[in-house]
Amino acid sequence: MKAVVFDKVLHFRDDYPRPEPKAGETLIRVLHAGICQTDREIIRGYMGFRGVLGHEFVGVAEESGRAGLQGKRVVGEINASCANCRWCRAGMPTHCETRTVLGILGRNGCMAEYCSLPDENLHVVPDDVPSDRAILLEPLAAACRVLAQVPLDGTEKAVVLGDGRLGILCAWVLSTSVDLVTLVGKHHWKLELAQGQVPVRTRHVDTCTIDDADVVVETTGSADGLQAAMGMCRPRGTIVLKTTVAEPHRLQLAPVVINELRIVGSRCGDFADGMRMLSDHPELPLARLITSRYPISKALSAFEAVEKGREIKVVLDLA
Amino acid sequence: MKAVVFDKVLHFRDDYPRPEPKAGETLIRVLHAGICQTDREIIRGYMGFRGVLGHEFVGVAEESGRAGLQGKRVVGEINASCANCRWCRAGMPTHCETRTVLGILGRNGCMAEYCSLPDENLHVVPDDVPSDRAILLEPLAAACRVLAQVPLDGTEKAVVLGDGRLGILCAWVLSTSVDLVTLVGKHHWKLELAQGQVPVRTRHVDTCTIDDADVVVETTGSADGLQAAMGMCRPRGTIVLKTTVAEPHRLQLAPVVINELRIVGSRCGDFADGMRMLSDHPELPLARLITSRYPISKALSAFEAVEKGREIKVVLDLA
Repeated sequence: MKAVVFDKVLHFRDDYPRPEPKAGETLIRVLHAGICQTDREIIRGYMGFRGVLGHEFVGVAEESGRAGLQGKRVVGEINASCANCRWCRAGMPTHCETRTVLGILGRNGCMAEYCSLPDENLHVVPDDVPSDRAILLEPLAAACRVLAQVPLDGTEKAVVLGDGRLGILCAWVLSTSVDLVTLVGKHHWKLELAQGQVPVRTRHVDTCTIDDADVVVETTGSADGLQAAMGMCRPRGTIVLKTTVAEPHRLQLAPVVINELRIVGSRCGDFADGMRMLSDHPELPLARLITSRYPISKALSAFEAVEKGREIKVVLDLA
Repeated sequence: MKAVVFDKVLHFRDDYPRPEPKAGETLIRVLHAGICQTDREIIRGYMGFRGVLGHEFVGVAEESGRAGLQGKRVVGEINASCANCRWCRAGMPTHCETRTVLGILGRNGCMAEYCSLPDENLHVVPDDVPSDRAILLEPLAAACRVLAQVPLDGTEKAVVLGDGRLGILCAWVLSTSVDLVTLVGKHHWKLELAQGQVPVRTRHVDTCTIDDADVVVETTGSADGLQAAMGMCRPRGTIVLKTTVAEPHRLQLAPVVINELRIVGSRCGDFADGMRMLSDHPELPLARLITSRYPISKALSAFEAVEKGREIKVVLDLA
């Protein structure tokens, strides 16, 4: 089958073996796959991953033991857990000690004609939700995770730092719960794209003087983002850290103690929360984030386009 | 007056001018002053401080406008706030934008015959509390701050990393609220000293295999402490960060995001909480932490002793 494979270098292959789903897994025919910041980090060595890339998809459940799934359009949670280890038993399956993660850890991903996931990971996409919205469900759920982790009463001054796809989604999602959300970034065109339909204020990072945010969501994808976030936060404020950086980097931590900041690491979100956000907030213009699409055979060009930084979400089409 | 002064180098002087308390401030005749890790950091350049060092003391209120204070034995909160800025008005006077901090920021400290503090910063030491317990009130209050910041139900697995004075105090204070507290350090003699009378388990860092703590309090005073704390924490666990390090240092932050850790910066505590801990828990053997005492004229020898690392709390005696 066609697949985008990383084995120290990035390849497009058309002879990759189809996945053979284990018991309890569904075989998914992929329709669309998204390229994410994490994929770029993996190509730089993050997680030491080798295999088929990709963890954002919309597909069709082709072979499934789960009743009612076969033939349905689906999206999928990316962590496959053992249900048995100490963290699974403690109700944290996304932190399973032997978990595999679609296209990230020990499991081939979805930039291919087919992928497989445990039956229970899959969510049927309602007929009235177009694939161009559903393809954003994984990052949308990750944005919703902020609401699950940080108690908000709506009066907070919230800042999202980073105008990439996750940053814009976090700002949009926060705007459903908080009155004053400011998206801070360094790309005028991305900040512009984030506005309209959604009550989000934007500031260019060079002219931003915010130093009293109650909550700063750090999504820059850059090693320097956390330090910048510290400067924007009020004493005893909260920083939600989304950026995963492969390499160690230099950081001045004294402000965390002096200002008694809280830093909350934040990873994947619950797809059910993302799905609810999709239905409850049709005004969130998700499809606007898709700035380019490529057939999977042109995946390497797609990755090059992403590297040039003129894209928000690039989608690979399988069909 | 006699004073320990830092002006790029550390001096003992006997001709330093007495402080002249402003309106609303009390003049304190110092009886005892403690040497703290923060003093060592200041000598290395932290905060760019110049002046009389010291922020831990027991003294006598010599001249005070506050009713009932004069002649009383007192300890004092170290942050002097403006009561007027946005953070003071928001109920966070210890984060006042124009605050001075005794012996740390814009205010001469207590390693001298006299110091001054706002009247409202002072707490009378009850007659039945000996000075050798009261001198530990500042770090004791800082340890109590952990209980104020992190909600605990008593069933948590708590680890304190660092067997210095603050680490031992944090372990003792946590043991009043949590069943299982483990103090992890690298000095066998300090770990031994922490035991007895207080239900605290100890582990040497070289043989410690803990990776599932609900809460890790990081008090090592070392730039590497936070990374070690990350390894001891369960997914979604909490790290309370006490160490302030002057210099930027290299850190691998990916585990914060991958394991969704919470890092809570923690600074000074409320002296009222410390005082309550003193009275409610007479079993906490605070005076045991005082491993040496020096007359203030021998302060430089005292600092040398601290640098050698064979001390827990060194006290300078003024009288």
